[in-house]
Amino acid sequence: MIRVLVWNEFMHEKDPSCKASEIYPEGIHGCIAEFLGKEEDIVVETATLDDENCGITRERLKNTDVIIWWGHCGHHKVPDSVAALVQEEVLNGMGAIFLHSAHKSKPFMRLMGTSCSLTWRESDDMERVWVCAPGHPIAQGIGRYFELPGEETYGEPFGVPQAEENVFIGWFDGGEVFRAGLTYTRERGKVFYFQPGHETYPTYKNENVQRIILNAVRWAKPVSRTDNCMDCPNLGKAHII
Amino acid sequence: MIRVLVWNEFMHEKDPSCKASEIYPEGIHGCIAEFLGKEEDIVVETATLDDENCGITRERLKNTDVIIWWGHCGHHKVPDSVAALVQEEVLNGMGAIFLHSAHKSKPFMRLMGTSCSLTWRESDDMERVWVCAPGHPIAQGIGRYFELPGEETYGEPFGVPQAEENVFIGWFDGGEVFRAGLTYTRERGKVFYFQPGHETYPTYKNENVQRIILNAVRWAKPVSRTDNCMDCPNLGKAHII
Amino acid sequence: MIRVLVWNEFMHEKDPSCKASEIYPEGIHGCIAEFLGKEEDIVVETATLDDENCGITRERLKNTDVIIWWGHCGHHKVPDSVAALVQEEVLNGMGAIFLHSAHKSKPFMRLMGTSCSLTWRESDDMERVWVCAPGHPIAQGIGRYFELPGEETYGEPFGVPQAEENVFIGWFDGGEVFRAGLTYTRERGKVFYFQPGHETYPTYKNENVQRIILNAVRWAKPVSRTDNCMDCPNLGKAHII
Amino acid sequence: MIRVLVWNEFMHEKDPSCKASEIYPEGIHGCIAEFLGKEEDIVVETATLDDENCGITRERLKNTDVIIWWGHCGHHKVPDSVAALVQEEVLNGMGAIFLHSAHKSKPFMRLMGTSCSLTWRESDDMERVWVCAPGHPIAQGIGRYFELPGEETYGEPFGVPQAEENVFIGWFDGGEVFRAGLTYTRERGKVFYFQPGHETYPTYKNENVQRIILNAVRWAKPVSRTDNCMDCPNLGKAHII
Repeated sequence: MIRVLVWNEFMHEKDPSCKASEIYPEGIHGCIAEFLGKEEDIVVETATLDDENCGITRERLKNTDVIIWWGHCGHHKVPDSVAALVQEEVLNGMGAIFLHSAHKSKPFMRLMGTSCSLTWRESDDMERVWVCAPGHPIAQGIGRYFELPGEETYGEPFGVPQAEENVFIGWFDGGEVFRAGLTYTRERGKVFYFQPGHETYPTYKNENVQRIILNAVRWAKPVSRTDNCMDCPNLGKAHII
Repeated sequence: MIRVLVWNEFMHEKDPSCKASEIYPEGIHGCIAEFLGKEEDIVVETATLDDENCGITRERLKNTDVIIWWGHCGHHKVPDSVAALVQEEVLNGMGAIFLHSAHKSKPFMRLMGTSCSLTWRESDDMERVWVCAPGHPIAQGIGRYFELPGEETYGEPFGVPQAEENVFIGWFDGGEVFRAGLTYTRERGKVFYFQPGHETYPTYKNENVQRIILNAVRWAKPVSRTDNCMDCPNLGKAHII
Repeated sequence: MIRVLVWNEFMHEKDPSCKASEIYPEGIHGCIAEFLGKEEDIVVETATLDDENCGITRERLKNTDVIIWWGHCGHHKVPDSVAALVQEEVLNGMGAIFLHSAHKSKPFMRLMGTSCSLTWRESDDMERVWVCAPGHPIAQGIGRYFELPGEETYGEPFGVPQAEENVFIGWFDGGEVFRAGLTYTRERGKVFYFQPGHETYPTYKNENVQRIILNAVRWAKPVSRTDNCMDCPNLGKAHII
Repeated sequence: MIRVLVWNEFMHEKDPSCKASEIYPEGIHGCIAEFLGKEEDIVVETATLDDENCGITRERLKNTDVIIWWGHCGHHKVPDSVAALVQEEVLNGMGAIFLHSAHKSKPFMRLMGTSCSLTWRESDDMERVWVCAPGHPIAQGIGRYFELPGEETYGEPFGVPQAEENVFIGWFDGGEVFRAGLTYTRERGKVFYFQPGHETYPTYKNENVQRIILNAVRWAKPVSRTDNCMDCPNLGKAHII
């Protein structure tokens, strides 16, 4: 079983004046947990900003195979200590999937080491998501491209390190391009960033998006796990030869 | 001085029924040689398919700092031995810039090791070329993007190894995206692939395109050069400690 | 089932004056086929230079999930057409593992695009193989390092593109280092190069080496497969938007 | 002129009981500043932990082309705010060279996003530093290898992201290997990590080490610089096409 923890700041969906409250009354985490939970090889839990310490403890992360993170307006409300715990557990082997505006979340920024900046517009652009790496596990079951009738527009340059694989590139009818699906290895942990998913569009109800997130969960599950990636052991004075 | 050799198959431009003959009566190589030749730090020569052995000898390549390659219908007319000479000299340190349909040229395919395949359409799309790596030497002097009113459309997936830097991504108004500017290191040699430049459009007269090719020449010039990258020296039986 | 094809030039082992004939009377391919064949998820076939067309046909490769390649003195005896078939099928999705002196084999050189050169000595050095990527699937079950009491010494620089993962680095008691385990993605195909395995040492009988090759087979098995990686489809004139 | 700022915690050298006080009475920063200062294209300043705010201000970094960082026991004494300033200015374009035990310095760890862990021994091993990328600017003027008669031993695994270039690998006569010279691009900034340089050995007086640091300074100097890499501009609602 792959143990997934879906973390969501869960702010927009509780605001009755925001469309998100209609689209995702159960929260974005609830929507993602629901479609992942239908899979026989996956068990899902959720956590939000409202939970004590964001619902994140070292022990809970040790029992998580893949964390999924959605955040936007509440990035600064996540304590540095929580972001550090998530980062460290990824280095220890936990997989991590960062969605949409989580590009500026503390755990993602810590793992990338860069600004993770981009440009953006809110103008109901249609996005066509192209597959650049058709052999990649995360792209299986997706055609040459798929379309999202409305999305927030993200534009280049995207301030991240060069990815291991550029799985998707997004085309927006307003004129932008964006590297929409990027993979990284950070020590034992696998990291996937996926751009679609603004809170005011039903993106996480799209079957292609659901398939990609499901593929990514299976791709990111740990090969091996350690407890002590941060250690720098002193091996003593003896030569080993 | 940077010694540049512009290689062009020079077929379309000699065909009076092809628009290329009007746009580039001097050949694409002639156009590129002209704007590069205005620079004080650059000397340019040209060579074409009509020249003996494609105008390529080992000695000529040894005296070339950066080769620029344009080919399309005549890829198969370039002998394997010529392609091997170019490949080897890149590994020895010569820079190489492959333009547009040179994605399927023998020297580029040999250096990549992959199919270098892509999809294409000829429908006069407008292309907007986005800068993804604004700090890269090849992107200096280019704004956030520039536009080409008409270009052949290239689409993903592009069958190449993951690049060191994805300097540009192209957006086409017909709906495609394409990784339009990619850098590679192949032993001592630097390689740049740049997608714009179909023969029926005046792309190489565009000032942004000219600036990019000029930047790429300066970026690709050798840091060091060797004569013998292909050797596997036997260092004898003695331990070196 | 993972369908493995072990290819070996099978020259040294048939020469009674060469130690290889004592160590591997069944051929290196026979030794590798034997230990892989014990696994329940693997079926193995073998092929050698003596077979018609090296035992390589397009159809046979289509029915191979992972090819393992060992060659040394007979690299030039492998026809270019055979090397091209192997390269193309890797791009289509077949996994490939290149062992030791296969660094100069035609299929590996074609996939890398570089000289694949290195330095070498034959002086019975002890090699200690260090794990650099302890979380990588290919390193599972290996400790921090393991030792081979005698090996041919390979030295840097190794003329290959920068790898996706540097899984192992070899330390030789004669004073050299060598990047001993490197992974690449080439379109749909996964490629692993592993340095130990000179024909005059019983390296392929070492349990760590066997574990690594077994891990690599499972790692390299195709995620997806295509028939037509080399195609460049013309999508017609119609805009797709 | 390349404006270099050499930062050193400057703790060991002030401790009369530590060998460093004899080897580097002027401090490691003083030694590095001296040999770099002899170059006509370089001006050097230094800063240490004793200076107010570590001698680091935003304005000073804006006027620095390349920062060199040495730290060991005092990593935790560097305020997070100082580390953040250094990280941000690297992303804005400033080059950065991290020496030896700076692998665990705050600015390096922030830029890598990983543990930067390794193993270590203090047993006066001889280190032989091998050149793996002979064409790289940082390796120019260095032979196939050079030796340091005594160094602290660093061992794999080194917990960093895969480097762009693995310029050097170290061989220790006690039996370890270590990726001794690694390059990274982090947005506009170039980063070089170089392993030799324990405070109790005269490593920074070695001519090869000096040449490498000098080469690295020239390699890391900014191509372009920005003030606002952290911004995520909202481009409004208007389509740009």
